[in-house]
Amino acid sequence: MSKGITSRSEDYSQWYNDLVVKADLAEHSAVRGCMVIKPYGYGIWERMQAILDKRFKETGHSNAYFPLFIPKSFFSKEASHVEGFATECAVVTHYRLKNDGTGQIVVDEDAKLEEELIVRPTSETIIWNTYRGWIESYRDLPILVNQWANVVRWEMRTRLFLRTAEFLWQEGHTAHATEQEAIEEAERMLEVYAEFVEGTLGLPVVRGRKTENERFAGAVDTYCIEALMQDGKALQAGTSHFLGQNFAKAFDVKFTSKEGKLEHVWATSWGVSTRLMGALIMAHSDDQGLVLPPKLAPIQVVIVPIFRTEEEKQAIDNYVDNLMKELKAVDVTVKYDDRDTQRPGFKFAEWELKGVPLRIALGSRDMQNGTVELARRDNQTKETVSQEGLATHVVQLLDEIQNTIYQKALSYRTEHTTEVNSYDEFKEVLESKGGFVSCHWDGTVETEKRVKEETKATIRCIPLDAKEEAGTCIFTGKPSTHRVLFAKAY
Amino acid sequence: MSKGITSRSEDYSQWYNDLVVKADLAEHSAVRGCMVIKPYGYGIWERMQAILDKRFKETGHSNAYFPLFIPKSFFSKEASHVEGFATECAVVTHYRLKNDGTGQIVVDEDAKLEEELIVRPTSETIIWNTYRGWIESYRDLPILVNQWANVVRWEMRTRLFLRTAEFLWQEGHTAHATEQEAIEEAERMLEVYAEFVEGTLGLPVVRGRKTENERFAGAVDTYCIEALMQDGKALQAGTSHFLGQNFAKAFDVKFTSKEGKLEHVWATSWGVSTRLMGALIMAHSDDQGLVLPPKLAPIQVVIVPIFRTEEEKQAIDNYVDNLMKELKAVDVTVKYDDRDTQRPGFKFAEWELKGVPLRIALGSRDMQNGTVELARRDNQTKETVSQEGLATHVVQLLDEIQNTIYQKALSYRTEHTTEVNSYDEFKEVLESKGGFVSCHWDGTVETEKRVKEETKATIRCIPLDAKEEAGTCIFTGKPSTHRVLFAKAY
Repeated sequence: MSKGITSRSEDYSQWYNDLVVKADLAEHSAVRGCMVIKPYGYGIWERMQAILDKRFKETGHSNAYFPLFIPKSFFSKEASHVEGFATECAVVTHYRLKNDGTGQIVVDEDAKLEEELIVRPTSETIIWNTYRGWIESYRDLPILVNQWANVVRWEMRTRLFLRTAEFLWQEGHTAHATEQEAIEEAERMLEVYAEFVEGTLGLPVVRGRKTENERFAGAVDTYCIEALMQDGKALQAGTSHFLGQNFAKAFDVKFTSKEGKLEHVWATSWGVSTRLMGALIMAHSDDQGLVLPPKLAPIQVVIVPIFRTEEEKQAIDNYVDNLMKELKAVDVTVKYDDRDTQRPGFKFAEWELKGVPLRIALGSRDMQNGTVELARRDNQTKETVSQEGLATHVVQLLDEIQNTIYQKALSYRTEHTTEVNSYDEFKEVLESKGGFVSCHWDGTVETEKRVKEETKATIRCIPLDAKEEAGTCIFTGKPSTHRVLFAKAY
Repeated sequence: MSKGITSRSEDYSQWYNDLVVKADLAEHSAVRGCMVIKPYGYGIWERMQAILDKRFKETGHSNAYFPLFIPKSFFSKEASHVEGFATECAVVTHYRLKNDGTGQIVVDEDAKLEEELIVRPTSETIIWNTYRGWIESYRDLPILVNQWANVVRWEMRTRLFLRTAEFLWQEGHTAHATEQEAIEEAERMLEVYAEFVEGTLGLPVVRGRKTENERFAGAVDTYCIEALMQDGKALQAGTSHFLGQNFAKAFDVKFTSKEGKLEHVWATSWGVSTRLMGALIMAHSDDQGLVLPPKLAPIQVVIVPIFRTEEEKQAIDNYVDNLMKELKAVDVTVKYDDRDTQRPGFKFAEWELKGVPLRIALGSRDMQNGTVELARRDNQTKETVSQEGLATHVVQLLDEIQNTIYQKALSYRTEHTTEVNSYDEFKEVLESKGGFVSCHWDGTVETEKRVKEETKATIRCIPLDAKEEAGTCIFTGKPSTHRVLFAKAY
């Protein structure tokens, strides 16, 4: 098959778009900025959901569901929140269409809402308005709730998965009796995200804090994980916010403490979205197509038979039948591609495009020799191995592939993380190889904005493990106590 | 604890509302008609989702995701569809709010959409518009796709779970090369629903076809399952539609057949929603609270310790610790309620209200005797049994409870299904005991409407297993060849 994928070196951005569409992950819909997530792409997202959901439950959270719509007035209650979201939201103003008599379907002006409803861009406001009814005393705390939902932010320039008007996500919203407990929760969930992205997506992340400038609208502190893509740009892969008492104050949510005092509740919120799909695709894939880590691949192993006669096919079928049972018994997801409408070469290219981690091919000679050919998607190596003990070998190989993918991304990041000590060096590194640039900064919003204007790089985070180190801001020369990470970002 | 639940005999409708709210299943939100599904209620819905999703996959379907918004013009393309949904939909007209300068947040009139967007009430139109790009030849068929999503229908009179402006559901949308294959798919999915509702919700259903009058807007044929609630009213628990070529024609979706001819594609759609939560609650619960079938109960077994001294508590703790491990090992969901803030009686009442199928209580005497007390929620019986082999006994008992719940609902339905042969009898039965009324009908929309006006009863379905039987319509005396089921309905 002709893949028709632009190469990364030619046009990285087009390569990404080609991959998403040709590998059947997603496509643009008839609605501006909204995507259709196709079954193959959704299959990956479902795996992300399942693994994350399990971790959320293991850490004591339950799922719930809150309304899609938020009354407009709720937005005005938390000042910085409305500023962050009001300029990009879908507004429902009417609740009926009608036939205008000529067969034209029009909005029925008699069905205008008294108060406009906003399609949720995030749910802090509606949830904290609800929590007011759930919380009376310290006995009602903590509330540890998560929601899997769709949200809408009216982005003007959209890209499949990375930036869409509607996207899918989960949003955790927790309520606590003390500041300390809320901070611990925000940190705990950041670590859940970090372990998930590293262990499952095979993508190393920097755990850090956002600067004031990049903080979530309404947060006291935003924790984040930042990953590096193959073009040297950073991508924020998840955020966890310590919201202080901001939303509790805006929605008047108080509780009676153990000591009998009436106090405002402390809050966190945290989320990851279908944006992770974009990170996954961009971080590992190559010019031949997707490279999927086995833990997220909807199909982990594809088996392609190579035969001339119906008799040869029959022998292969019989063998594969057993092999598939063995593989399924050890939880390997396997597909037998015995279509008679396509040749093996076409199938090889197709599954390569779709990122299936391991391909097993076998023909008549293999059947005679008791062997199969194994081809790894990640490093394009092939080996001929015995049919004996194959299932066990496959399981080991899938583990190895998962690990190799991570190590490769880690090496890339190591090579693309540079310490600099002057603004000239800073600009030179950004220009020549991109990646994370670690440097001193004077801690002001002003400097951050100026650097962004001049270089397009932003502070991705103040790493949680930043060492104390005396230095001077690369831009202003003012004193600084630790390095931060700058990068151009998605 | 004081439950504050109205009894069924006093006010069935209020009983239902009390139950939903007091058992922490759901509550009304600040947005008219939209509900908040609380963690306990959502836990039940998650179990429904998991079981159904597994069945969908076993029957060859994949999940995908389509946009929340549908361009207004799409609605006009299928004539009966727009008629069915246009009068109750949320319309997005703007994409931005702004601060009007006085601090007031208002809709930004400069951000008016060229074409209004409808929040999906169902997704046939946007999906068939998408399928046009996916289908060229018979090789691309069938498409077997399902979507888990939220939908909005602007209902004026809402009730938690049963009728809400926003609800959660799944909608399957399949595309086929032949009429026969599409009909088989619609029938297959009806059977998946029927087995799910009977086997998991413990609720017997009648499998049938809707009359023209009650058909889905845009369907050629609507299959349904109908269940009976404890007040003698019917509830439609799921529908599966054979859509013919209606949507393929409206959205110009054609394929090249094996014979090389260009033909319109055949379609089905099928869905169940959070309405099933309403059915579940109403079908089995009693004046003491919820009665949950074990297969859907978020907590299947609750263990309540009864003790006076810390020493007694310690001994019970040790035993329970082991018991819980044994129960978890056989996939029983168990909770140890060792709160020291509440007395056993309070806990008993609370778990009764929440419908936990089995309660294990044990005190010091039990510890001495090597026994525990088991209390079944469904029939309120208690027994004292040996601690030996308890886990196995619990598993058997949960099975038995699941079965008893079903049998009880089946008996109720049998007692409340009445064959009548005259209109007087019809009205008398509807009045005196309600339930399904089986009778002859002349097959016209006119008669169905007249009967509805006079009695509020509608034809729930033409049962799939209706025997051929010569008779005369109870209303017009015209000839009829089989009976249909009337009932008052939710």
